[in-house]
Formats: sequence, C-alpha cells, structure tokens
Amino acid sequence: MLIGLHLGNGYGSQPGAWRMPGVDPKSYTSFDARVQQAQAAERGKFQFIFLPDGPGAVLADIATEAPAFNLDVMMTLAAVARETEYIGLVATGSTTFNEPFNLARQFKALDVMSHGRAGWNAITSSGEDVAANYGRRIPSSEDRYGRAHEFIELIQSLWGSWGKEAWIHDQESGQFAKRDEILPINLQGQYVGSRGPLYIPPSEQGQPIVFHAGGSPNAHDLAGRFANVVIGAAFTIEDAKAQREAFRASAVSHGRNADEIKYIPGLMTTIAKDRRTALDRRILLGGDLLIQRLGYLQQMLGIALNPAHIDEPLTIAQLEAARGSRYDPRSANALKIAKEGWSLRDILAHGVIDYHPVIVGPGEEAADHMQAWFEAGAADGFWISPDVNSDGIDAFVNEVVPILQQRGLFHQDYEGKTLRENLGAPEQYGIDPRI
Amino acid sequence: MLIGLHLGNGYGSQPGAWRMPGVDPKSYTSFDARVQQAQAAERGKFQFIFLPDGPGAVLADIATEAPAFNLDVMMTLAAVARETEYIGLVATGSTTFNEPFNLARQFKALDVMSHGRAGWNAITSSGEDVAANYGRRIPSSEDRYGRAHEFIELIQSLWGSWGKEAWIHDQESGQFAKRDEILPINLQGQYVGSRGPLYIPPSEQGQPIVFHAGGSPNAHDLAGRFANVVIGAAFTIEDAKAQREAFRASAVSHGRNADEIKYIPGLMTTIAKDRRTALDRRILLGGDLLIQRLGYLQQMLGIALNPAHIDEPLTIAQLEAARGSRYDPRSANALKIAKEGWSLRDILAHGVIDYHPVIVGPGEEAADHMQAWFEAGAADGFWISPDVNSDGIDAFVNEVVPILQQRGLFHQDYEGKTLRENLGAPEQYGIDPRI
Repeated sequence: MLIGLHLGNGYGSQPGAWRMPGVDPKSYTSFDARVQQAQAAERGKFQFIFLPDGPGAVLADIATEAPAFNLDVMMTLAAVARETEYIGLVATGSTTFNEPFNLARQFKALDVMSHGRAGWNAITSSGEDVAANYGRRIPSSEDRYGRAHEFIELIQSLWGSWGKEAWIHDQESGQFAKRDEILPINLQGQYVGSRGPLYIPPSEQGQPIVFHAGGSPNAHDLAGRFANVVIGAAFTIEDAKAQREAFRASAVSHGRNADEIKYIPGLMTTIAKDRRTALDRRILLGGDLLIQRLGYLQQMLGIALNPAHIDEPLTIAQLEAARGSRYDPRSANALKIAKEGWSLRDILAHGVIDYHPVIVGPGEEAADHMQAWFEAGAADGFWISPDVNSDGIDAFVNEVVPILQQRGLFHQDYEGKTLRENLGAPEQYGIDPRI
Repeated sequence: MLIGLHLGNGYGSQPGAWRMPGVDPKSYTSFDARVQQAQAAERGKFQFIFLPDGPGAVLADIATEAPAFNLDVMMTLAAVARETEYIGLVATGSTTFNEPFNLARQFKALDVMSHGRAGWNAITSSGEDVAANYGRRIPSSEDRYGRAHEFIELIQSLWGSWGKEAWIHDQESGQFAKRDEILPINLQGQYVGSRGPLYIPPSEQGQPIVFHAGGSPNAHDLAGRFANVVIGAAFTIEDAKAQREAFRASAVSHGRNADEIKYIPGLMTTIAKDRRTALDRRILLGGDLLIQRLGYLQQMLGIALNPAHIDEPLTIAQLEAARGSRYDPRSANALKIAKEGWSLRDILAHGVIDYHPVIVGPGEEAADHMQAWFEAGAADGFWISPDVNSDGIDAFVNEVVPILQQRGLFHQDYEGKTLRENLGAPEQYGIDPRI
C-alpha cells in the first residue's frame, strides 16, 4: 500500500486549521513548516508528499481562509529535498501554462538534487481564473489534452537527451562527457517544440516519475499512456474500483502492464483517541463555517433542517423522509451517519460535505477504511490530507501507520532511496520505448 | 563598494577548473558544492551571489568542458537560501522565454524564503540556440525589448498586488487577510498580460530587486527604467566609466536618482601569494587549451608567434612590430604584459584572452585594480569570477577582502539582512510609482 501526504498551504485541509491552538499563523510563508511536515511524513515512511497547484486560483475566501496552495511548489520541494532523505517529492505542473523546457529543467534538477525522488503531476489547467493569470483563455478540452500529450512526450525526451552513461567527468583523461551521447531531441509538434538537449545527467532513479490527476476519459487515456501514479478522487469504494480499472485498462491499451499504474484516491483525516474527541476537534476547527453548511446537508438529505436544532439528532419523521440526493455521491454516507443518531452538528463534523472520504475517529477506523478499499481492488494506496498539519500528520503516523504495518498492509521501512524503488515503478529513461 | 560572486557551473570560471586537484569532479550536479561556495562568499561579506543563465545554450565543448550554467538557477538559489543568512541571491531570468506569472511567483517565493534577499537579473535572450529549446526563433531586438519592458512592469505589478499590510493572520478574530488590499493587476499589453493578483505577501525587503545585464542602448534604457544593479562587462576603465555614465544618465531620464543604479563590471581572479605562483596555477589550469590560444594572441598583437618558442618572451623585433588590434579591446593589456618580458606561455597565463579583466597575482593587485576603477567612477563594485570555486573564493575572501576593508573601501559587516539594505537600494513595492 502506498501512502502520500497532501501538502497544500502548510496549515492543513480544514479552512480553520490556521487558527488552531499550537499552529503558527504564519505557516503560509514558512518553509520551515513545510520541511517539518515533510519530515514528519518521512518518519511515518510515507512514500511521497504531494504538492497540488492551480497556478493563481481566485482568492474568494481570503478574508477568512488561507489560499489552498504553496507560494511556489518547486521552491518548496527544493527546500524539502535538502532536508529529507527518503520521501518522494511530487508537485503539480501544468502542461497548459508552462514553457516545456523550463518545466523539464526544474523537475530534473529537483530529481538530481533529491538523489532520485522527484515526481511530476502532469495536469491540464481548466479554470478561466487560472488562464487569466497568463493573459489567456482556457483552450478547448481537445487542445488541452492534445498539448498535454505532446508536452509530456517532449519532457520525457528532454529528460533522456543526456545519455544515461554520457557523464564521464574523468579528471585524469580530461573527458567531461561523451559528446555523441548528448543529443538534440528535435521535436516539433502542433502545440510545443524543442530542439534540446537538456544538459542534466540522470539522477539516481534516471528521471522523475509522471503522475496524473483527473477522472475523465481524457485523463484515463493520458495517464494510461504516461503515468505511474494517479492522484484520484472517489467517494465510494465502487467508484474508486471503477476508476482504478479504467486507468489499468488504459495502461494495457497503451502496451503497458496494468500494475505499472497505481490508483491512489484521497482520504481526509481527523485522528483522535475516540470518535467523540475527534468530532469535538472538527467542531472547534469548523467554527461558524460548520453550521453554515447545514444548507448543503439539507440538499443531500432532501429534508428541511432547522439550525435551532443543531445539537439534536434528526427526528424519526425526518429520518423516514430523508432520501440521499442522487446528484451528490456523498449523500449515502451522510444518511448513514444521520441514522446512527448523531446531532446535526456532529453529522456535519463527520465531514460528510468534504471533498474526499473523511475519517473522524481513532486510528483504527482509518486503517479499516484503507484496508477495505485496498483489498477490494479500489486503491493501490491513499493520499492523506490531515485536518491540521502541525499535529495531524503526527497523529496519522503514530496512530494509523503502526496498525497498517501490523496488518502487513504497509511497509516497515523504505525499500530504497529513490521514488521508483519506493513506488515499485519500472525503470525508465527518456520516453517510454513502447510508445 | 559592492562585491558579488559569479556562480556558474560550480567549478569556477576556467574551463580546466573541474580537473583541478581537490575539486570534486561531480560538482556540476552537487547542490552541496553551491551551498558551500555561497557560504564562503558570505564569510567574505559579499553582497550577493549571481547565477547567470542562458537557458539551454549549445554544448559545443562538452567533451572536455563543463556546461557554463547551473542545472536550474531557481532550484539552486532555493537550496542556498535555506543555508545562508545574509548574502543576496540573484539569478538571471529571461523575459523572452518565460511565462511572466510563473517567474513572478518563483522570484517572490525566493524572496520570502530568503527573508528578503532575492534579486532578478531581467534579461532578453538573443541566441538562436536558446530559442530552439523553446521551439521558436529569436524575436527582433525591438520585439525583445518591447516585451521586456511589458514583462518587468507586469512582474513588479504582480509583486505589489498583495498589499503590503494585507496579511493579518489574526487567529483570535479569524481575519486572514484584507480582501480589498489583494487586487488584480489587469495588465494586458502587446506581448504579455495577466489578471493577478499574485497570492504572496511581501518579504522583509518588500519585493526582489531588479538587475540587468547588457551594454546596448536598449539595455541602458531598460536598466535606467527598472534596474538597481547592472551586471556589466568592460575591459578598460574608460569603457566602464562610459557605461556607468550611460546607465546613470538613463536612470535620470526616467525620473530616478542616478545613485539608484549601480554599475558592477566583472573581474576574474587567480589569487596566490605572488605573481609567479599565480601564473603557474593558471598554466596548470589551462593545460593544452592555453597553448591553443596562441592564435588569438597573434591576432591581438598583429605578429606571428611560434609555438616552439612558447617559453620564451617576445624578441625585440617582435615587440617593435607588435600593434594592439583595434578590433579587440583586450589588445592593449596583452601588449603591456608582453612588453614586461613574460614568456608567451606566461602572457597567455595572465588571462589576456579572457572575457573580463583578470587578476593573476597576489591579493593586493586585485585590491589595487578595484580601488582604481572604483575611485575613477568606473564601477560601484565588481562581480568576482574566481578561476576555481573550491579554493578561489576563499583566496579572494582571505587575501583581497581584508585589504579592501583596511582601505575603507568595503564594508566590515553586512548592513542588514535584506538585499536592499546591503545594496543601499531604495524601498519599492509594486511598480515604481515614478514611472
């Protein structure tokens, strides 16, 4: 089982994380904080940290909430690379709004700098708010994915343009490199082009690993062709299973082994000694925002809910009338929680409206969830998004990881010092020869 | 007097540096080496390190020489930022082949990360070999500089788009930031555009400092408008003086104080206890390459030179016939050295064909050169390019810096912890209000 840590703005996944006791309110700009968080994940043998990015998204809630992303994902990973030893370093890099040569260079430099621990989450950008920061409009889906295919092929070609054995650096003979093993790539497509070569020798893992995030047929195709890991999003075990199968089938259709692509959905966590303590933590975290979400819950359950009864469970009549909305995949879970007799506040504190499945409870509940999905073939692992980074990573490391290890589901230690070794990803240098 | 360290491929400015005894032949990919070199310069109170970049230049001499540049300048500076405290961190970033939003973000993230020590050397790219890596041709000079003006204005606008006092992060009240002080920039020019804002609060120095490198009328104009420091290149005190005056005049024409722009030409150094020891070091460094340059020397002096007499001085007849080439600004110096009676090998070992003035001798010679230029109004400082970084930086720090300090030419310690403080650059946030 693979485990990654989702590392956004430094506070944690809950909007109220920046206000929690013990949290440095300046973590948004603190590279120290990011380094400590990565080190905590490394203590827990996480295979990687993952830094999402949506370059320049709108700051709708900036008055009360921190932006979702790092100041700059590559600069952050550079800092972390120098102060960790085993953990993989993965960041999102848009194929829509980057110069390919620059992106190729930075990820391969990171790979060298980290001694073979870099991964690139190659995505397409789809928000007009992002495009506006680049003075442009979002291209059509066809153009975005067309460019993404060319872009990744070009990046991998650049990564392989300095021959694997080209760097001699023999002081005695004076040969620095084999000139005829450092070759131009001369790719010119419809969207991007480059002559090359890139002047960076291989890292300990050869070159970075390609990740992808998305769930559309276009994403299945792109990831099936290029990716070793998919950062997924699924609310139910059935959906995750279907997604995982789609990516595996796509890999096979591109001439690869299905096991070369790992599907890793998200899991948000509030880990505490028991459910009640965990719920109280979420209530503290949620603040007023929690109650403001009652409207969403109404829609999910299809019944009217009265804020005046926030600390009471649903009545029998309400429970009988409640129907999970067919338009929201989270509804079934919300209804299940409601039927357990929790108060409205507690139902919301279970995170039933969050963007991924949520564990609010003791470590064993997280381990059970992960084991069930893993053994059902719904996931090759999980990316974990703790509620508050400052103590939430430690809580997962201390309370969940040992259980997974005892159950034989998670490794006792790193298999090696490169991301390829720790993900079990195949050797690759340059573009995939089977494509 | 300002002093910067030129930090290219990690070995040093001489092509043979990577082969020298005591040099790690893998320094090209070693971030440890860059960090140590920056720390050595910081021990010598250098105001900044400067990482040049010409994204993806041709590797003509890769068989025997290291590439000239860092794997990636921003990733390198990120590493150095975490492991130094005072020294400025300056890198070249092309206005021709970058997405402005990405560049704005990385330099401001570096500025935050280093607590106010970032500088951006804003240049235009002019080599077709560079353009080819981006799948394009080099634009006309008019278009390159037109884009550069828009580009820098846009970058500085993005840097100022998060209000100076906008970040509240008050855990008690729950106000994260002042929404109405984080504003879009809505710039759309002929070449580049962006809506913004950039979501990064100010650093301890507000925002990075703009550098420029170049000597054309276009460069004078661009630097006079935006730059606080010019990375110059001049072989003679007269040329440096004229360049410095041109930049100062341009600053004034843009409504600025002439002292707001500092002109800093280069100085290459081989520092040893005496001239003979320094020459022998250069001869060892130069290897066969030194003698291969005899052809250049012939052209510079306008006389035939016989490789068989490499260890003999020029004959009286040769000296009488020698005329410094009017096409090479280095000729006068070469002729002067020749007349001092040095052998052909020693003349070449003086670095008479190098790209900048060269000191090959004891620290006092370097100090004398710097004092003469500085006091003549030909330079506000120098960027130093040691022959071999591993011990050449230390040699300058130990042998030249103390003399400059004793003469009252160079500071005894850092004025502060930001680059603006240490350069004496004025406060600035957002675009320059006088433009």
